[in-house]
Amino acid sequence: MDGSEPTDKDFVIPAEGLTAQQRKRALTLLETHLVGKHEHMIGFQGNQDLGNAQPDLARFLDFHLNNVGDPFQQGNYQPNTKVVERAVLDRYAALWRADWPYDADNPDSYWGYVLTMGSTEGNLYALASARDYLSGRKLIGEPGGGSEQMVYVQAAPPALSGQAPANGVPAARNGDSPTADPRNAYRPVAFYSEDTHYSVIKAVRTLAIDTFGAVGTTEYPGQCPIGDRWPLEVPSKGGPDGSGEIDVDELEALVRFFAERGHPILLLLNFGTTFKGAYDNVEKVATRLVPIFRQHGLLEREIEFEPGHTDRRRGFWVHVDGALGAGIMPFLRHAAEEDPHSELHLALRRELKGKVPEFDFGLRVEGVDVVGSLVMSGHKWAGAPFPCGVFMTKNKFRVEPAATPAYTGSPDTTFAGSRNGLSPLVLWNYLASRSVRGHATAAVAALRRTRYLESSLRELEDRLDREDRLPEGGLFVDRSPMALTVRFRRPNDEVIAKWSLSCQPMYTNAGELRQYAHVFAMPSLTEEKIDLFMEDLFAEGAFDRPELPRPEPKSAATAFAADVHPLALVPTVGRGFQ
Amino acid sequence: MDGSEPTDKDFVIPAEGLTAQQRKRALTLLETHLVGKHEHMIGFQGNQDLGNAQPDLARFLDFHLNNVGDPFQQGNYQPNTKVVERAVLDRYAALWRADWPYDADNPDSYWGYVLTMGSTEGNLYALASARDYLSGRKLIGEPGGGSEQMVYVQAAPPALSGQAPANGVPAARNGDSPTADPRNAYRPVAFYSEDTHYSVIKAVRTLAIDTFGAVGTTEYPGQCPIGDRWPLEVPSKGGPDGSGEIDVDELEALVRFFAERGHPILLLLNFGTTFKGAYDNVEKVATRLVPIFRQHGLLEREIEFEPGHTDRRRGFWVHVDGALGAGIMPFLRHAAEEDPHSELHLALRRELKGKVPEFDFGLRVEGVDVVGSLVMSGHKWAGAPFPCGVFMTKNKFRVEPAATPAYTGSPDTTFAGSRNGLSPLVLWNYLASRSVRGHATAAVAALRRTRYLESSLRELEDRLDREDRLPEGGLFVDRSPMALTVRFRRPNDEVIAKWSLSCQPMYTNAGELRQYAHVFAMPSLTEEKIDLFMEDLFAEGAFDRPELPRPEPKSAATAFAADVHPLALVPTVGRGFQ
Repeated sequence: MDGSEPTDKDFVIPAEGLTAQQRKRALTLLETHLVGKHEHMIGFQGNQDLGNAQPDLARFLDFHLNNVGDPFQQGNYQPNTKVVERAVLDRYAALWRADWPYDADNPDSYWGYVLTMGSTEGNLYALASARDYLSGRKLIGEPGGGSEQMVYVQAAPPALSGQAPANGVPAARNGDSPTADPRNAYRPVAFYSEDTHYSVIKAVRTLAIDTFGAVGTTEYPGQCPIGDRWPLEVPSKGGPDGSGEIDVDELEALVRFFAERGHPILLLLNFGTTFKGAYDNVEKVATRLVPIFRQHGLLEREIEFEPGHTDRRRGFWVHVDGALGAGIMPFLRHAAEEDPHSELHLALRRELKGKVPEFDFGLRVEGVDVVGSLVMSGHKWAGAPFPCGVFMTKNKFRVEPAATPAYTGSPDTTFAGSRNGLSPLVLWNYLASRSVRGHATAAVAALRRTRYLESSLRELEDRLDREDRLPEGGLFVDRSPMALTVRFRRPNDEVIAKWSLSCQPMYTNAGELRQYAHVFAMPSLTEEKIDLFMEDLFAEGAFDRPELPRPEPKSAATAFAADVHPLALVPTVGRGFQ
Repeated sequence: MDGSEPTDKDFVIPAEGLTAQQRKRALTLLETHLVGKHEHMIGFQGNQDLGNAQPDLARFLDFHLNNVGDPFQQGNYQPNTKVVERAVLDRYAALWRADWPYDADNPDSYWGYVLTMGSTEGNLYALASARDYLSGRKLIGEPGGGSEQMVYVQAAPPALSGQAPANGVPAARNGDSPTADPRNAYRPVAFYSEDTHYSVIKAVRTLAIDTFGAVGTTEYPGQCPIGDRWPLEVPSKGGPDGSGEIDVDELEALVRFFAERGHPILLLLNFGTTFKGAYDNVEKVATRLVPIFRQHGLLEREIEFEPGHTDRRRGFWVHVDGALGAGIMPFLRHAAEEDPHSELHLALRRELKGKVPEFDFGLRVEGVDVVGSLVMSGHKWAGAPFPCGVFMTKNKFRVEPAATPAYTGSPDTTFAGSRNGLSPLVLWNYLASRSVRGHATAAVAALRRTRYLESSLRELEDRLDREDRLPEGGLFVDRSPMALTVRFRRPNDEVIAKWSLSCQPMYTNAGELRQYAHVFAMPSLTEEKIDLFMEDLFAEGAFDRPELPRPEPKSAATAFAADVHPLALVPTVGRGFQ
């Protein structure tokens, strides 16, 4: 580290404050430090190319921009940017093949908002919405309309089969499914793969949502359809050596088990996992599950959310965590749909032989629009000065908002109350600064750069081998299909710090512990940077490092003491945990 | 509205994108519009005086600043501003009289982080932490240490008294309290006043936390200690006509009822309510409740969170929502502690006769440091270009974090995953740009301006009366003790839009429906603006407005149909809802 590395001491705020000069000095020290870190950041899926954000948007730091409440209602706090937010939402709705522009009266219209956090907020909000939707909750106004208060009620769990309902509320009816236990009708069970981002586990924990593994372990011991013991998450295809994609066969068996018993199904799919950059096959999953939903009355069922008031709604919810993938894939689809002889189309075909995968609101299986909600991070593919993102669903899947605060004049339909009003400007400026074709060209170029990265690492492996300096076992170079990232052996701490590499340990299927790092081919990763990085990795001792602490190998399934009630697995190895 | 009012059409993003000139034109349209809205924003508690944010910090829009994970661990994502975040946290810890600097080995040390949302995120995180702490949850590593996974478990609810525990986990013991039912030991019950911000109701709903009103209605019908029926929230002192402060006598009776029955107590207090700007009397509340906690074994109790593993912890948690108040009060305290003959002290005494109220980590009652967590919004008193804030607690109250993602190299201890790294710079620049005395001077000046605002409104009332133009019933001018806001009769929609007034209907104790607006005396509210605003209110027709929809009067307590299980009240009148 050079002498300019800032320390805590440089930013201490004394009781007497700092002069303008002292503040300037400290901020310049930070800025100088950041320039270096920014230039070398290649390890996370955060695009460091911020386009024109600074020159175009700096002037908006003169305002407190707060998009409090619903984006489609102006509200009373006037210094907001909702007019721009709606333009961003419309554009992403078009890219994700939803019904747009937003129309409050159309049940199939998209609805969404620009997130103040990244996808963590979006995933949390999606899972909370799904939980409330599937468990029959609804906010009801007291009789008479225009009421001054609403009471948030829980449709009571149905009584034991054959008994009169304790509270008069009958069970949801899952169509004519003969195997469904009505007691389970309001108890959604969540499914997600073992490559899922840690924020999802946090959300499940925070929201007290049951996972299939917890319910299986507790209520159906020894009955797991895919093994002796219940895993707490859906296995990934091919195990740890695999691509990171969810195992659709295993998922199907698990979902069938719970659908047969009358549980609503809450499924979270990854579209671009954090470490391997893998895409769950949303279309294949939907094709397998829709018949199961149909068979067990989950495509549409009647919910009596309060005595005498019913509606018909689904008994399943598919949420797609497209933090990275939802930002890039629509542009790849655009390239695929171009004239097959166009330069762009041909460039795409050099990188991708098969079909551009479907993941969005346009996906239909047997006439069913499968995707219930979708989340994307704005700071990943698009690039932004701070975290942001987009949450999207459809009108017909929304539970009634908690309230319209008179205070703000805008319904409290978003997760955040006060929302960052600068973020929509960042996304708008990004989207507007190029044509869709320009965005598609950038997306295809990223695939090409990922291939260059992968071949560079394989060449490096050869060079090291020729000099007899290749670490035992090689460099573990691997790339999942279509991923924008390549993983490889973890280098030493100096290289990690210089290039902001994210790292994690993983066990191979054979039980060997490997330490990995990876690089993401975001638009800010140039071939020049890749070349410089390879030189650092080629340097003497680049892969030397002290032995890291050895975590316990993960068993295929987990045993619990009989007196422990597991709620969620919090894995610390193999996909983003330490 | 003038012709420059931007519309959705001005920001549409076409498939071919926009030229730099087109983007510039749209952004300039927006900026021009915002200049006007910014200048006249006086109705919300968001300081529009952003100091040097733009000139000092604009250059940081060139980086993606992301403080992912714990502020006290650098992590692998290097373009972060955690070094500045820690300086901000230390400063607020000092202002809030916590043990600082942060020390991981000191149980009494503060811990906290800069929020990416405003206080909504902080309140949610505080309530989630309190829920997990009070309900005996803990993340446990599997035996052996250095484990590769952790399992999030729920200490099972104790078995019925006299029966063997179903799962081997005994009940928490609330000391020697003879009246406590061990079945309730892991069932925290939440209390908050009817002037509480809507984000808290959202949090309670999202987190599935039981409120005293819901448990009382369902399990103890007819036994409410303060009336025939259970209210769903703690009444405010003096009812709707009152100051907006929680009624301590009623709170005491309600808390005693649930403490006697062995429930852990989760109390949220407001320090600056949204509409009336009222401060709950934290010291008085603590003085009344600590003896109750002592009597019922809630000051310290043993939790066996898994077989054979116990700890000792509290059976209560007090969270202070200091969104506005926590930002200003420490500076008023500084003024109060100055030499009594100093100009600053005398200025404070002109505005405030009594004691500056206590609300923070320095508050002790019978030796107990009562406050468990504290939240402040950064965009309210301090002023910020976008929402932000600070969450703070103490090491000893933290439940184990879910995990340390290897991926980020930093434990996942915060609610957000990716966190806005620009926000700490905004708060740092604000704090550092003045001495504590300078901040104190600004705080006292705000009290003086509020008095000027109040007297201007009363003068306006006289002027209107002299001209026989005073609306029937007058202007309803009122100010709660020490509040930075004055409330008054809602003017017409044009005035509301021009000045960004927040409005709400409230019933008087006598049942009369009144439509209110209010103005906050943030640092950006000058006396000149107040004078201009008064002229607008004096204009012909300023208080003319069509009849607003008349909400149902709120009953003192709410009746539910026997088959409705109330979870939380979502009031729509009287403190921030419509």
